[in-house]
Amino acid sequence: MCKIDRTAMRIDGNRLSFEIGARDGAARTGVLHTAHGEVRTPAFIPLATKGTVRGLEAREVAGLGYEMVLGNTYHLFVSPGQDRIAAAGGLHGFMGWERALITDSGGFQVFSLAHGGVANEIKGSGRKGGEHGSVVSIGEEGVRFRSYRDGASLFISPEVSMQVQAALGSDIALVFDECTPFHADREYTARSTERTHRWLDRCLAWHEREGPERQAVFGIVQGGVHEDLRRESADYVSAAGVDGVAIGGTLGRDKDEMREVLAMTAPLLPEAAPKHLLGIGEVDDLLAGVALGLDVFDCAVPTRLARHGVVLVPDPQNRFRLDLRKAGHEGDRDPIADGCPCPACQNHDRDYLSYLSRAEELTAVRLLCLHNLTYLQELMKGARAAIAAGCFSAYASHVEEGRTPWDASR
Amino acid sequence: MCKIDRTAMRIDGNRLSFEIGARDGAARTGVLHTAHGEVRTPAFIPLATKGTVRGLEAREVAGLGYEMVLGNTYHLFVSPGQDRIAAAGGLHGFMGWERALITDSGGFQVFSLAHGGVANEIKGSGRKGGEHGSVVSIGEEGVRFRSYRDGASLFISPEVSMQVQAALGSDIALVFDECTPFHADREYTARSTERTHRWLDRCLAWHEREGPERQAVFGIVQGGVHEDLRRESADYVSAAGVDGVAIGGTLGRDKDEMREVLAMTAPLLPEAAPKHLLGIGEVDDLLAGVALGLDVFDCAVPTRLARHGVVLVPDPQNRFRLDLRKAGHEGDRDPIADGCPCPACQNHDRDYLSYLSRAEELTAVRLLCLHNLTYLQELMKGARAAIAAGCFSAYASHVEEGRTPWDASR
Repeated sequence: MCKIDRTAMRIDGNRLSFEIGARDGAARTGVLHTAHGEVRTPAFIPLATKGTVRGLEAREVAGLGYEMVLGNTYHLFVSPGQDRIAAAGGLHGFMGWERALITDSGGFQVFSLAHGGVANEIKGSGRKGGEHGSVVSIGEEGVRFRSYRDGASLFISPEVSMQVQAALGSDIALVFDECTPFHADREYTARSTERTHRWLDRCLAWHEREGPERQAVFGIVQGGVHEDLRRESADYVSAAGVDGVAIGGTLGRDKDEMREVLAMTAPLLPEAAPKHLLGIGEVDDLLAGVALGLDVFDCAVPTRLARHGVVLVPDPQNRFRLDLRKAGHEGDRDPIADGCPCPACQNHDRDYLSYLSRAEELTAVRLLCLHNLTYLQELMKGARAAIAAGCFSAYASHVEEGRTPWDASR
Repeated sequence: MCKIDRTAMRIDGNRLSFEIGARDGAARTGVLHTAHGEVRTPAFIPLATKGTVRGLEAREVAGLGYEMVLGNTYHLFVSPGQDRIAAAGGLHGFMGWERALITDSGGFQVFSLAHGGVANEIKGSGRKGGEHGSVVSIGEEGVRFRSYRDGASLFISPEVSMQVQAALGSDIALVFDECTPFHADREYTARSTERTHRWLDRCLAWHEREGPERQAVFGIVQGGVHEDLRRESADYVSAAGVDGVAIGGTLGRDKDEMREVLAMTAPLLPEAAPKHLLGIGEVDDLLAGVALGLDVFDCAVPTRLARHGVVLVPDPQNRFRLDLRKAGHEGDRDPIADGCPCPACQNHDRDYLSYLSRAEELTAVRLLCLHNLTYLQELMKGARAAIAAGCFSAYASHVEEGRTPWDASR
């Protein structure tokens, strides 16, 4: 473990190294060296929530160029359980993924149950608590909840979360935190952030004693929309001895507030650390995050949208989205996005994909997932190239004006 | 169009040629030369019911070695409609499939609605009529039914079926017939078979006038479980001027009766014609069909089983099926089937696939589809090689004793 030096330019731990490459304003490129290979940053991280990226095999996700996926501690804890996964050689072996793997802590999910749909709304996940179980009690020790599978009483604490993540064998574990919703007031948020810090210490203590040697740990900065709380949290987390920092909790009630909170929080984080923005993955938000010097982003949006027939397109007026299930695509011989290298765009037109998605065919979900993940991979690849070339802000402007990532890169 | 000579060894039409290669008992290999390439027989034909094979892209189906798929006239007529598909260059262009394509006539589906679940049971499709609409009236002219999509009143007649199939642009169209259920008595079956013959004439008359030049037409032999009716039907269809013959209708109430009906019907068909057995696709039934000299088989079973977590394995005691959703696969490090070249077997074990299927992940449906279709492709490839080597009955015995197709081929 390495205490993060706020001014250092490089983190070199035995668990993780982070090497910053080019810089362009606050934006930077970098390479995360994990126990399962390199991750070039800035990077978008697809979700392999329950041990698979929706509809795709692990080798296909690698084929799209992704170097890290995120596994969900909460879901995998509920089913099939960490012991079964550990017996398969950890989550890498279980799902056949040979590259880097990060696991969340389960905090977001259990507190989504407790706080209702609000946290979900913020993160845009659209999930209903009822489908995912219910929280019985939240205390200093941890959170007790009922399994959505069979109603069994389950308990997650900082130690349990780290224990599960150790069994999953991820390259990067996230500490167990309380994800505060946007309707929480300042006082609740302050108390919650303090508890998150106590939980951080317990996570690190457990990991120091019993964690896998090559597993890195990222701390999570909370503090809601309050600058002083975010600053306190950033300082606490940085000093605690983590390998990277993540921005968690509410970022406000809408996109404008989110941008403000991010602009205020990002500079508080230690320069040398890899910086992960949790649960954000819209095209313009990714560009905003990169501009602020954030390195890693995960989000359910691209795969969830695909499931509902929505694809990413160079259309800033419509949040870069096109709903293929709406009427009007009949006879449209254009691909989803001109020049996109994904199989949906290479082999099919909007007419067919729209029909297929409305017919709720699995082939559609898969093709649209492949498109959305290709789009974001191209977006981040373009961002990395633009930063290296010192023209990130022009690149971002081009994308925000409606060019595709591959056109904006030219 | 060519009148089929019952003794000829080769059909050479301008719409379709069928070349018989090796023979081994009644079994034979052959090549169907269609407007979209060759189909080596005996062949299993996967269903692309609504314009896609479940969960797979067209190019992936080709990658499995399949040379023909079957599109469903009824479903595509209801949605998205033949005009939209024709505008996309026919079903080939619509779905991006460049190889041979056969379309059924819609008869099976509309009569399943009329006769209830029984026809479905026979064919093992497990569909409920209610999900698929309802039949309003059956008459000499055709069948009127309500769309399962929007309740709209729709009409299919022999002419409409051929018209739709012409618009779909399939390489082989099937004539519109009544698919009699197994509970129909002799008298009903006799009358129904006569109507099927009148409909055959109307189909061919329409096709002669307005059908696509390169589209072949297969007739369907009905007659239920009654030898004299099957003989009459086989004679009628053979003399009518078709490019191939299919065996349709009920084959009895169980596997034993099915084998009897097949053994009695197959020799009635003209030797030189390509012979299609409709709706049959279990491992042992395919081998029995091949042994009787049948050439082409289509069936929903392999993809439907995959959707429900059931995979094909060399286990004759259990109908060559393994239910991955049942308990007992936890920690099982074996692939579904040793030596299987599919990605599910090459990259994953039963432990993971069982978990994934129980979690209802799309990735599981896809992987299990890939496995089941690979298994049947290997089965038929092995059958073709065995016939060519004059050892088909040894091959069939090996498979029926529990060897995999690839082991049985050695």
